[in-house]
Amino acid sequence: MNNIFFEKKKKFILLKEIFNICNQNYSENHNKKIFGVNNLIDANNREISFLNKAKYINDAKYSKALVCIVSEKFKKYLSDKTIPVISKHPDIDFFKVVNLFYTNAHVDREVFSYVKIINKLKKKISIGKNTLISKTAEIGNNVSIGNNVIIYPYVKIGNGSIIGSNVIISNAFIGDNVVIKSGTLIGQIGFGFKYFDKKRFSFPHIGKVVIENNCQIGSLCTIDRGTLSDTIVGEFTTIDNQVQIAHNVKIGNYCIIASQVGIAGSTVIGNNVMIAGQAGISDNLKIGNNVKIGGKSGVVSDIEDNKIVMGYPAKSFREFVRQSKK
Amino acid sequence: MNNIFFEKKKKFILLKEIFNICNQNYSENHNKKIFGVNNLIDANNREISFLNKAKYINDAKYSKALVCIVSEKFKKYLSDKTIPVISKHPDIDFFKVVNLFYTNAHVDREVFSYVKIINKLKKKISIGKNTLISKTAEIGNNVSIGNNVIIYPYVKIGNGSIIGSNVIISNAFIGDNVVIKSGTLIGQIGFGFKYFDKKRFSFPHIGKVVIENNCQIGSLCTIDRGTLSDTIVGEFTTIDNQVQIAHNVKIGNYCIIASQVGIAGSTVIGNNVMIAGQAGISDNLKIGNNVKIGGKSGVVSDIEDNKIVMGYPAKSFREFVRQSKK
Amino acid sequence: MNNIFFEKKKKFILLKEIFNICNQNYSENHNKKIFGVNNLIDANNREISFLNKAKYINDAKYSKALVCIVSEKFKKYLSDKTIPVISKHPDIDFFKVVNLFYTNAHVDREVFSYVKIINKLKKKISIGKNTLISKTAEIGNNVSIGNNVIIYPYVKIGNGSIIGSNVIISNAFIGDNVVIKSGTLIGQIGFGFKYFDKKRFSFPHIGKVVIENNCQIGSLCTIDRGTLSDTIVGEFTTIDNQVQIAHNVKIGNYCIIASQVGIAGSTVIGNNVMIAGQAGISDNLKIGNNVKIGGKSGVVSDIEDNKIVMGYPAKSFREFVRQSKK
Repeated sequence: MNNIFFEKKKKFILLKEIFNICNQNYSENHNKKIFGVNNLIDANNREISFLNKAKYINDAKYSKALVCIVSEKFKKYLSDKTIPVISKHPDIDFFKVVNLFYTNAHVDREVFSYVKIINKLKKKISIGKNTLISKTAEIGNNVSIGNNVIIYPYVKIGNGSIIGSNVIISNAFIGDNVVIKSGTLIGQIGFGFKYFDKKRFSFPHIGKVVIENNCQIGSLCTIDRGTLSDTIVGEFTTIDNQVQIAHNVKIGNYCIIASQVGIAGSTVIGNNVMIAGQAGISDNLKIGNNVKIGGKSGVVSDIEDNKIVMGYPAKSFREFVRQSKK
Repeated sequence: MNNIFFEKKKKFILLKEIFNICNQNYSENHNKKIFGVNNLIDANNREISFLNKAKYINDAKYSKALVCIVSEKFKKYLSDKTIPVISKHPDIDFFKVVNLFYTNAHVDREVFSYVKIINKLKKKISIGKNTLISKTAEIGNNVSIGNNVIIYPYVKIGNGSIIGSNVIISNAFIGDNVVIKSGTLIGQIGFGFKYFDKKRFSFPHIGKVVIENNCQIGSLCTIDRGTLSDTIVGEFTTIDNQVQIAHNVKIGNYCIIASQVGIAGSTVIGNNVMIAGQAGISDNLKIGNNVKIGGKSGVVSDIEDNKIVMGYPAKSFREFVRQSKK
Repeated sequence: MNNIFFEKKKKFILLKEIFNICNQNYSENHNKKIFGVNNLIDANNREISFLNKAKYINDAKYSKALVCIVSEKFKKYLSDKTIPVISKHPDIDFFKVVNLFYTNAHVDREVFSYVKIINKLKKKISIGKNTLISKTAEIGNNVSIGNNVIIYPYVKIGNGSIIGSNVIISNAFIGDNVVIKSGTLIGQIGFGFKYFDKKRFSFPHIGKVVIENNCQIGSLCTIDRGTLSDTIVGEFTTIDNQVQIAHNVKIGNYCIIASQVGIAGSTVIGNNVMIAGQAGISDNLKIGNNVKIGGKSGVVSDIEDNKIVMGYPAKSFREFVRQSKK
């Protein structure tokens, strides 16, 4: 996985280091070089991944990963091309590997030695008071940025975009003609961790946030960056105030998401989806195209294209009305 | 509609311009002058409005509007005093007319050339660090304002009011003895738009927010300004943290609104209404006086005075308990 | 109740002042000195408290309070050691007494004469731009603080803690190795008031917030300080974005609280409790250890240890599934 937001501390690590982390003996291949970390789907044949849940078995079968940290019982599902390293806690051991490559991806330290205030307005950019923009951030033409905004290193903001006040953007690519209203936070670390041995292991978040062209994001929203893939908001999607979008969520184009909606981690949402106010969508779901989700609904399972759902747990609109009348 | 927050770019436009926008031929009256835009109820006999939904038919009958952009099928409901201009998309064409009068009412560009820092504390005003107050804002006596606050042009804040830190206020009149806690955003553009021809048409928001005397607003709330009328919070109403109040909502006096409540656009709420935590109220509803709405309820229809409702969809408290026991 | 956050304006008040506030005649003891205010449980034998609700009768029986402002019908429940002062409105009259001791505990005025910017970085503290830290705040070693942060007088932050940007902390003790993400507000006054005689009586909030070691708090959360006791988040508890925690709430250790959850006033939550996204918990409840609360649930009654609940009103998981299938 390539990532301009995190400096890679090591070019590669050796397979034997993985065996050591997982407390396993090793007999062969131990000097093989591993050049990066990734999820099973996106890993190339120089990268390492992990497998600890049944729902990722299919990803494992087709993965090109060179190495996979895997629990004993899932080992048999790995592709022939992938070297298994057995672990009792594949996720925890994988996080340790990620931390070898990227030392700060599990915690956001808002240290500012690298931040510079842009002194000259060029390219018709207007910038409010007290706004901090990293010298490595790229700001397009005709961009308008409010007050007290913080834009971290390597963030890109496309042409014609409008950023409100009190906005914080890190680890994100913002497209052209995007509007981000005041008080919204984009690209922070997500809610990913595990208690283990009475300690907290925080998931490294080396993904980013991609806000595509012509999106509008409301005020006081939180859009967390991805762990091993990106959080994406598709073109022309419009989001109201106080919406929470967790890590790795992918939202399609032309979606309408009303106020106080929450979308949990890794859920994928199609195009032209309407989500009414205060609805919540559980993690790891797939919501089809043209779906309409009623206000305050709680979605806990996948939804096919073109469905209208409502209630908690969300069911078809017809069924919701029937039950409500009983 | 008079509005000190937006400079009117044109004193008037001619009726023939409306016909052109709506792609209609015109035969008479085409040089009549139109001096402003408004909703059907409030329009005077020099202003233009629009009609595109059945629920506004009654408003149309009694409207004094000089001109109304209207779909073919609703034309018959207009008053004799109103000149109809037929349109396939009355709302979109009306927005174009609004944009002729007010060029920036559909997008908040936080540009700050007009902002000045008040250097002297007069009238016993106390102001925190890094706070920006427009030179055209009016601040009453004994007002206390926190840090990092932004107060935009023409905003009025009454005597004795207390504003927390990180608050942003635009397009708003704040009464006397009002408390607004930290991080709250008042007067921003609301969630009003329409996809049309694969583009987004954003509703112009030329209304304002009125927070009446003795209100208290919690932290991290969003109260959006109105489109063609005002968003109003009545006297002595008390609002908790993380509450969302959409454009054009009118809330009465002595209401209690607990944390994380959301009220959708144009809903009208009476006096002495209690709304418990995380409840949601759909758009365009009428909630009577002395109504009590249980925590987490989803209100999707009007509620008469003095009712107690609960659940989703919200029903009488008695019915909610009966169903919950089944 | 000792409190470093509020200067006590009087060392003591005389019992006759209490009788006067409550509009009662007095015959004896009227020169007894009262040295402080407290809730019934924590009051010592030099302090005054109040009793106005049946649910606090048991607290009253065992209270050591010297004086208690009490409604006529509850007088008989007071301990022999406690002097009763009858009142028609014990809470309102008690607030008046609190205000004699602490004049500003019912309103947060963000006045900044006492704030100083720390110029030198000592103890390996890193601090962002435009951050205001009171000269009486105590900041531990290796602390990292973001931009636009405001830290009020007497706040303590332990070693190794990481504070994001746009965070406001007042009336709070933050432990070691705590993470508080950007935009979160800790220690503000809670939603406590009563309309009386057409005016609002705001509850004095002389409690604080305690965030214990190793906690993580998400972005844009609000954690209000206590009224007469503290709001507490226990060790290693992890909280996601946009969570609201009201005054006097006590949360145990190793809890997991997902996004957009709301917990109402004075509720007590055990250890190892999991609360999924958008759930709400009513006020004054007791949630046991190891409880799991499903996403979007509305909890309106106490929950015993080890239960799994879901729905609104929240019921056992089994019952929720049964009802959902009907």
